[in-house]
Amino acid sequence: MINFEALFKVSYGLYLVCSGDKNKGNGYISNTFFQVTAEPAKFAACCNKNNYTTELIQKYGAFSVSIINQDTPPEMIGTFGYKSGRDIDKMAGFNIKYSDTGVPIVLDSSIAWLEFKVVQTVDVGTHLMFIGELINAELIDESKDPLTYLYYRQVKKGVAPKNAPTYIDKSRLNVNSKDSSLKKYKCLACGYIYDEADEDIKFKDLPDDWLCPVCGSEKSDFVEIV
Amino acid sequence: MINFEALFKVSYGLYLVCSGDKNKGNGYISNTFFQVTAEPAKFAACCNKNNYTTELIQKYGAFSVSIINQDTPPEMIGTFGYKSGRDIDKMAGFNIKYSDTGVPIVLDSSIAWLEFKVVQTVDVGTHLMFIGELINAELIDESKDPLTYLYYRQVKKGVAPKNAPTYIDKSRLNVNSKDSSLKKYKCLACGYIYDEADEDIKFKDLPDDWLCPVCGSEKSDFVEIV
Repeated sequence: MINFEALFKVSYGLYLVCSGDKNKGNGYISNTFFQVTAEPAKFAACCNKNNYTTELIQKYGAFSVSIINQDTPPEMIGTFGYKSGRDIDKMAGFNIKYSDTGVPIVLDSSIAWLEFKVVQTVDVGTHLMFIGELINAELIDESKDPLTYLYYRQVKKGVAPKNAPTYIDKSRLNVNSKDSSLKKYKCLACGYIYDEADEDIKFKDLPDDWLCPVCGSEKSDFVEIV
Repeated sequence: MINFEALFKVSYGLYLVCSGDKNKGNGYISNTFFQVTAEPAKFAACCNKNNYTTELIQKYGAFSVSIINQDTPPEMIGTFGYKSGRDIDKMAGFNIKYSDTGVPIVLDSSIAWLEFKVVQTVDVGTHLMFIGELINAELIDESKDPLTYLYYRQVKKGVAPKNAPTYIDKSRLNVNSKDSSLKKYKCLACGYIYDEADEDIKFKDLPDDWLCPVCGSEKSDFVEIV
């Protein structure tokens, strides 16, 4: 028997994984990035096969990882986590560095960045796991704490997008029925659900300039769900 | 250029990974355990080829993961993290559950446990990465927070053992020279270094019943290092 609530107890950080070049770069928010060996320093990043960044990592054989901080703006998480690089230029407006491999490295809201050459690619089903050897690493701003998935869920009330390795269909969780006069509203951009049962204020009473806490979309981008 | 300090900004939890059976079980403390796909729910655990638990996972084709809490006693971390199952029976004295695969599941100090069948093994150099399909998961005690590597390093002053994927040789870090009258003492059991430059009290002035904060060894197990 699997209690999916148990899976939320696994600790993850949140990272910005990027690839491409100066002309066409792309990136996405990942929580499955981790060191696999110390000598040499190798890390793994797990990418959904449908992600555009996955195509770029395969093509360029390299990727960068920015360790983003707790104050990363929701709009930035919305751009990288809930939109596709096939539709928009995600790098537009961000402060980008290019180092040895030529892949873009996003410096905004970043505590540190790391750059990798892919040395192994493992097919794990819906995702590809890229194993990269660390070739560059730099600290940028130690004044803030790294953003963790726990902080993002508990403080920022964020949810994992559908392509994430840790996505959990809410129907699998043990949710008790609550006051039926309370409604739920879903952000059409990122899937975030504003559940009045968990909030102090009804959705209709939120100010007009209220923004989705996950992706920064406007109130008008929400629909009521049952 | 690699600044190894940047690697400390990657967020990890700490877990107890076990395998074997009722007669001979073993486990070790891991920080590289993470979900790789959502459908089906598959996780990866990265194990040093020299670890006895690695042998057992290969033999039994299954492993369990206990998500340990912040108050896990240092002696327990010492037993599982800094001793070898080739020398001692690590399971002795612990509260163990056996479920579908028959591998031991440690319940002490655990918030939740998960059980896996190995579906893929990836050789990543010094380590093997076992990819397991989740077959059971249960919450035990949600009253405490999961132990993270950051908490272990900052609050518990722990260090990664040599076999860990995240082990960093201290000579690689940028450490400034400090007051030369201050000394350093190393725990022979786990390698933890008591550095007087970082402490309020000199090592010789610590009480006789002081124990290594990482593995619970006695003060007499420490030697002065230069």
